[in-house]
Amino acid sequence: MDNPPQITRTLARYVVESRFSDLPASVVHDGRRALLNWVGCAVGGSHHEAVDKALKVRTRFAGTPQATVIARGQASDLMSAALINGISSHVHDFDDGQPRNTNLNPTAAVAPAPFALGELMKAHGRDVLHAFILGIEVECRIANAVYVTDNARWFTNSTTGVFGAAAAAGKLLGLDEQRMTWALGIAATQSSGLREMFGTMCKSFNCGRAAESGLLAALLAEEDFTSSDQSIEAPRGFAQVYLPGSDPSPIIAGLGESYELPYVTFKPFACGIVLHAAIDVCIQVRERYHLAPMQIDRIMIRVHPIVLKITGNPAPRTGLEGKFSVYHCASVALVDGAGGERQFQDDRVNDPQVLSLRQRIQAEADPAFRRDQASVRVTLTDGRVFEHTVEHAIGTLDNPLSDAALEGKFRALADGILPATSVNEAIDTCWAIDTLSDFSRLPATVAGAGTVTDTEG
Amino acid sequence: MDNPPQITRTLARYVVESRFSDLPASVVHDGRRALLNWVGCAVGGSHHEAVDKALKVRTRFAGTPQATVIARGQASDLMSAALINGISSHVHDFDDGQPRNTNLNPTAAVAPAPFALGELMKAHGRDVLHAFILGIEVECRIANAVYVTDNARWFTNSTTGVFGAAAAAGKLLGLDEQRMTWALGIAATQSSGLREMFGTMCKSFNCGRAAESGLLAALLAEEDFTSSDQSIEAPRGFAQVYLPGSDPSPIIAGLGESYELPYVTFKPFACGIVLHAAIDVCIQVRERYHLAPMQIDRIMIRVHPIVLKITGNPAPRTGLEGKFSVYHCASVALVDGAGGERQFQDDRVNDPQVLSLRQRIQAEADPAFRRDQASVRVTLTDGRVFEHTVEHAIGTLDNPLSDAALEGKFRALADGILPATSVNEAIDTCWAIDTLSDFSRLPATVAGAGTVTDTEG
Repeated sequence: MDNPPQITRTLARYVVESRFSDLPASVVHDGRRALLNWVGCAVGGSHHEAVDKALKVRTRFAGTPQATVIARGQASDLMSAALINGISSHVHDFDDGQPRNTNLNPTAAVAPAPFALGELMKAHGRDVLHAFILGIEVECRIANAVYVTDNARWFTNSTTGVFGAAAAAGKLLGLDEQRMTWALGIAATQSSGLREMFGTMCKSFNCGRAAESGLLAALLAEEDFTSSDQSIEAPRGFAQVYLPGSDPSPIIAGLGESYELPYVTFKPFACGIVLHAAIDVCIQVRERYHLAPMQIDRIMIRVHPIVLKITGNPAPRTGLEGKFSVYHCASVALVDGAGGERQFQDDRVNDPQVLSLRQRIQAEADPAFRRDQASVRVTLTDGRVFEHTVEHAIGTLDNPLSDAALEGKFRALADGILPATSVNEAIDTCWAIDTLSDFSRLPATVAGAGTVTDTEG
Repeated sequence: MDNPPQITRTLARYVVESRFSDLPASVVHDGRRALLNWVGCAVGGSHHEAVDKALKVRTRFAGTPQATVIARGQASDLMSAALINGISSHVHDFDDGQPRNTNLNPTAAVAPAPFALGELMKAHGRDVLHAFILGIEVECRIANAVYVTDNARWFTNSTTGVFGAAAAAGKLLGLDEQRMTWALGIAATQSSGLREMFGTMCKSFNCGRAAESGLLAALLAEEDFTSSDQSIEAPRGFAQVYLPGSDPSPIIAGLGESYELPYVTFKPFACGIVLHAAIDVCIQVRERYHLAPMQIDRIMIRVHPIVLKITGNPAPRTGLEGKFSVYHCASVALVDGAGGERQFQDDRVNDPQVLSLRQRIQAEADPAFRRDQASVRVTLTDGRVFEHTVEHAIGTLDNPLSDAALEGKFRALADGILPATSVNEAIDTCWAIDTLSDFSRLPATVAGAGTVTDTEG
């Protein structure tokens, strides 16, 4: 019936036929890392006001508790849990990235679907991890092909995340090829999300809603709810409608031979990637020379010109403005030795010590620097001078976060939200995810008790 | 902050400030007619397999019963009721139209939102009617402006219906201008639906999902869930992203001076509009001359060439194929005097009398005919000849369905699904909608009892 390759069906068949044993061990471990990072981000964002509002609204319509609402001390129906966890995981924009033109944060809209469904089904942890890895694969392949020339209009997290969520949920449900093809089609016709929403609560909402829509797509397809069989590649399909002229054929090139998860990076700092080299070099120089803020007379930072262009604000007043100030980032990194959500709260931006040091920082653009490169020159009050350079910022493909660093990020995100015993258990359970005979043990570690919720704020 | 007109905010302000007393009486009556037609279509589609499947899936996650699932003898949570009623109302493609380039069926994705929310709120019927009228206005204005040059890629029912649903729900909730602006933004970032899905269950699903998404948008906005304030007109907003180069400014031209509901037409027959003149002329000639099929020797129908191009199949075998055969349509119209869903079931297409008459029908294309024009020449076995012409097919703007014809359509749709007493009550309640102190009386008339559901099929 079709002369061009049947892209949607081929993709569906790949997901259906994939066996866990087909996956390279390194990809499986990348999957564990991505899951750990996603869960940590969801814990960290779980008490943001966007989550409070969405949870309040959804609770009015929520059905029988079926899946954990992460760190909220409650469960909700499958759909609502996926929605809320998707919002939580992306609301601080602290999740992950991908060194492509897509601007994709791969896990936010995909993970909530198998996370909630795996709990309801009491699936084997290995099957949930497998489904998650395939969901990321489907999402990234579609994004890489369709958004190769233009990432300025659509919010790829949700427009392509919905496919990943559908594929992951469909894999857990054991859909056959036809039903998986329909699931991708039902996902396609729900694909939405505008970049115009950046800076509003809709950004993280889109991630949660895409996860929910993908989950719904798989569940409908399971009941033989029909859609187009060529939802991605048809002349009126996803690729041509969302980005006219795009070529969807790379989506199925080398399926099962190459994987996308190895290209997923994890954010070490809770601000734009453009600032990560500057923060990294400040933390490193602080640790190497055991610097205390009061020893420092002045600092000169050297960065790629884009850093000053986007984040050249010398006098931020709020945490959000601090995320766009290389001066605050450098100062708070030298004072706190960190760049997490805590460092971008209003009180840290206006902290006397951070503020004082910030006023002694100068920054210089160097066109010869790469974007992930930064150097710093610290002059102490006793006249000594220390210089240090970071060639590749932590969290980039050339210098990825270690497993230990991912654990540290998780702990920082969970601080004040979950008790330390739960945090340890969650981390251990993520690393051992593929050995769990009942996946729901993982959500249980991050469910959050009412008492913990009571102590926060 | 903006030089170009603030289209989203202006549209929001119009909806917020509109008073029922501002509406011309004729527009209010058009609203009653559109509501009656929509409810009838939802009753008629309520037992389609797409509805069965979606209801089965959603029931697993449904919350406290809050709103009627039309003609299913049950209630569900607000969101699920809106989803299912939206599917039911469009699944037979028998609802309504609009003589624009948009291919819009205006009510399917809009009505479910105020219908469900009005019931939950026990709102005044006048307020629900008012919200519904404004929702249609918002939807049609956006569709008319954005899809003026291209209707081939997006499914306008859902891509613009979501705005109408949000506006209608927001009006019922009494949102202020800022929250209504956010509601339209949260709608914009959920806007989806591909024309590629035509011919699959996803077509009607998109209508229901858009209603649900619009409802969610309004409820989130009520809690100060933020979105872009320029979601329609921004360079990265809905208009430019969904149809690059489109001009959204007509959306707010003449707000409150002209209305879109007077341009909404209602389908008299359960097939494509292209066939309506042919069916109409056959029903008219049958009634005028009291023809019985056995008296007829042969028939010649004259139509616009497009009719034979699209629906020239002389030997359909199924009900669906019958919808694309002018020969079946003419034959069954002469035998049954109707062109409803019943006439497009498999058994009517293969009925001996319908089949026999069909083989004695010839059709001729006349380029001089308008699309809504048809003539017929009937030769009886006794040699008499009757000729009849329809200048404007019933159901077009030039020859709209009368209130009585809309009632007849409702009765035919509800036949075998709701008891006659409920049907009468539903019709009376729709006509008196703006006098109801509690809107929920209307859904109650079409809820459908378990016993009635048991007798069908």
